[in-house]
Amino acid sequence: MPLDELRRQICDANRALPASGLVRLTWGNVSGIDRASGLWAIKPSGVDYEALRPEDMVVLDLDGNVVEGRLRPSSDTKTHLHLYREFSQIGGITHTHSVHATMFSQAGRALPCLGTTHADHFHGTVPVVRALTPEEVALDYEHFTGVAIVERLRELSLDPLEMPAVLQLHHAPFTFGKSAMDSLNNSIALEMCAQMALGSFALAPSLAEIPAHILEKHHLRKHGPGAYYGQK
Amino acid sequence: MPLDELRRQICDANRALPASGLVRLTWGNVSGIDRASGLWAIKPSGVDYEALRPEDMVVLDLDGNVVEGRLRPSSDTKTHLHLYREFSQIGGITHTHSVHATMFSQAGRALPCLGTTHADHFHGTVPVVRALTPEEVALDYEHFTGVAIVERLRELSLDPLEMPAVLQLHHAPFTFGKSAMDSLNNSIALEMCAQMALGSFALAPSLAEIPAHILEKHHLRKHGPGAYYGQK
Amino acid sequence: MPLDELRRQICDANRALPASGLVRLTWGNVSGIDRASGLWAIKPSGVDYEALRPEDMVVLDLDGNVVEGRLRPSSDTKTHLHLYREFSQIGGITHTHSVHATMFSQAGRALPCLGTTHADHFHGTVPVVRALTPEEVALDYEHFTGVAIVERLRELSLDPLEMPAVLQLHHAPFTFGKSAMDSLNNSIALEMCAQMALGSFALAPSLAEIPAHILEKHHLRKHGPGAYYGQK
Amino acid sequence: MPLDELRRQICDANRALPASGLVRLTWGNVSGIDRASGLWAIKPSGVDYEALRPEDMVVLDLDGNVVEGRLRPSSDTKTHLHLYREFSQIGGITHTHSVHATMFSQAGRALPCLGTTHADHFHGTVPVVRALTPEEVALDYEHFTGVAIVERLRELSLDPLEMPAVLQLHHAPFTFGKSAMDSLNNSIALEMCAQMALGSFALAPSLAEIPAHILEKHHLRKHGPGAYYGQK
Repeated sequence: MPLDELRRQICDANRALPASGLVRLTWGNVSGIDRASGLWAIKPSGVDYEALRPEDMVVLDLDGNVVEGRLRPSSDTKTHLHLYREFSQIGGITHTHSVHATMFSQAGRALPCLGTTHADHFHGTVPVVRALTPEEVALDYEHFTGVAIVERLRELSLDPLEMPAVLQLHHAPFTFGKSAMDSLNNSIALEMCAQMALGSFALAPSLAEIPAHILEKHHLRKHGPGAYYGQK
Repeated sequence: MPLDELRRQICDANRALPASGLVRLTWGNVSGIDRASGLWAIKPSGVDYEALRPEDMVVLDLDGNVVEGRLRPSSDTKTHLHLYREFSQIGGITHTHSVHATMFSQAGRALPCLGTTHADHFHGTVPVVRALTPEEVALDYEHFTGVAIVERLRELSLDPLEMPAVLQLHHAPFTFGKSAMDSLNNSIALEMCAQMALGSFALAPSLAEIPAHILEKHHLRKHGPGAYYGQK
Repeated sequence: MPLDELRRQICDANRALPASGLVRLTWGNVSGIDRASGLWAIKPSGVDYEALRPEDMVVLDLDGNVVEGRLRPSSDTKTHLHLYREFSQIGGITHTHSVHATMFSQAGRALPCLGTTHADHFHGTVPVVRALTPEEVALDYEHFTGVAIVERLRELSLDPLEMPAVLQLHHAPFTFGKSAMDSLNNSIALEMCAQMALGSFALAPSLAEIPAHILEKHHLRKHGPGAYYGQK
Repeated sequence: MPLDELRRQICDANRALPASGLVRLTWGNVSGIDRASGLWAIKPSGVDYEALRPEDMVVLDLDGNVVEGRLRPSSDTKTHLHLYREFSQIGGITHTHSVHATMFSQAGRALPCLGTTHADHFHGTVPVVRALTPEEVALDYEHFTGVAIVERLRELSLDPLEMPAVLQLHHAPFTFGKSAMDSLNNSIALEMCAQMALGSFALAPSLAEIPAHILEKHHLRKHGPGAYYGQK
């Protein structure tokens, strides 16, 4: 992928954040990677979304060096970097503080699969990622945020494209995807599923996960070799 | 109805979905039927609403054959087909994952008539439709979704124009109507009634249905031979 | 007031309903009266708000005769008529099924004054109006809705400009005002106060009314001879 | 700062209120001060936001005299005045009745730091400010509102730029900032944190503050000498 195209895609995905309803102020960022070149691009830190132009995107390599860009990259850059290094199958990452998903992060409650909306995007319970220790925070907060996410998905033997979301305790969600825009769509899906779950728990406090055969069916309608959702 | 007109109506109804606030991403579809010709049209699968043009609608007959259209029809097509075959009085069907109605579907709670907003559109409690069995899912998921809906309304002796909504367990609502746009309006009404009910239950957990004489009055103001709501 | 001006004001107030977020579909109507001529105007029944033009408003006298207008008036016309006849101090009436106020109507819970937002508009607890009897519904539903509202405010010795809102049991709110637009603003205030109260009760279930000296102060900042809010 | 520039900034910040989703009707105001000249500007009372022009802003000195402006200043002017006199470090003040923050004010519940969104803006628990006594209300309601706010922050040894928000009991929030726009951003952050907290408490009723090392880290990423969020 030409670098221009990568910057344009990442700029578009970041500019889509406010209209998605997932972010207020500057609380969110999207990145994406071109696996062929190993180069990836991310939003600059603290810049308003509507002001973003493709040339403002910061381009980095997989060692974390800034390759192009005049601005300082997102303060969450080292988290993204670690995820790209450890999860070679992902092509995009979105981080927001979307209201309902963040409620679950703050409450430290994993988000079980309560319906097919969830099953369409997330293959089971969206896990909570532990808080960092004082040592990790002091040493390199953003790097160890990535470390804790990778650790949690591996503990649970989860593939980040099958379970493209985590809820970091005390913080907020991170989502993954095949591309930047796919990771953003997973953030939208996560926010909707969290809002639905909040209400479903209010109506039925001891609600459990949906039966496995419904979860599998819905997930496989959209993902994997037998998928038949969408246009080929 | 000329086929062009059918396609235009179904396209308009699908394009109205995002502005209605009922759908995010591509989570919803509307179809409508011309009973004279037995032809019906539905949204193509996984296409963005704003990109839809009338010629993108997929036209089918009542045996489920695609009569016109280059795109793959909605993955829910067989559900719609079964409903049109079994409920000859309906002219349109809408399926969404609207947030509050889906909370009730996920919680497996029927939606009782708690007020006149509900009575204006739904003649009593909106029922929950059972989950499919593993065998039904394996055999033909979307077809048996329609079968379970028809089975539930018949069990309860409900006419789909008097009770133009169901909540499928673990999934989301389906609504019906005299036309595609009428079924969409019933989806909007269902979503509002579900949101109101969630709050009314928070304020009064053991709240029961409204008195029958109020329910009947409001329903008959809008429906049936003595209706006096609206123009003519 | 010239009739043209009355029609224009009532049309504007009705057209403002969808943007206010208080109504979906055609669930709401505003009317206003010119006390000098005794003529009043109301929205036609079941017409979309964006299609409304001043000449579509239905003009009536205080005996309920249609004086001008080609369309059928709102199905709630007799309720408005009774209120204008009995409450000579009001100049406008708004009826909506706004989501949070309707939650309280459905739950049959009066809305106590929990804060200054409420005190600024409503002088104490917004009362619930009883349901109609089967006889009243059979005889003249809309007329007796007005009767029950008047009865309730008189029972509580409330002036409809000091307490310009009621919550009808099983139904939804009605609000009053010095003018059509003033009654609409009171509907907006009522909806916000109901939403705030729902959350405040979730945080503090046994919350009581604010102290009288705060309620009086805020109400009198905006209303009565010593008011000093706004421009002159 | 030239007076024209001050008026323009305060006008812009007030005009941004409706789009922020924090205010309905005329329930909110923003002010800002030029410390060099000791002059400050505030919204005129009861004027619609979209109608505001820079020349409508009311300019005052730190003795509360109107220096320029044809309109009556906000009814909350004396509250702002007292805060500017006592807190020399602040450059702007925003007052709204934003829905979720007001729920906490009405319930009399302080807003603990439940996550990093909160820590990014508020250094610990956002405090509740006591209600005024009948004597204070009778004597000078708006002045004593400012007195009670100052008293509460001093009691808790809080710096208004470290804790740029308070929740007044029975009323609503006030926020501070380095500038008018910064105080508005803190109002947006407070509203989001209140909404998230309402849901987090529903999911985990006995939820406590986040660990101190996470709170400190997030706060210091954005504030103080070692801040590395944003551009330069």
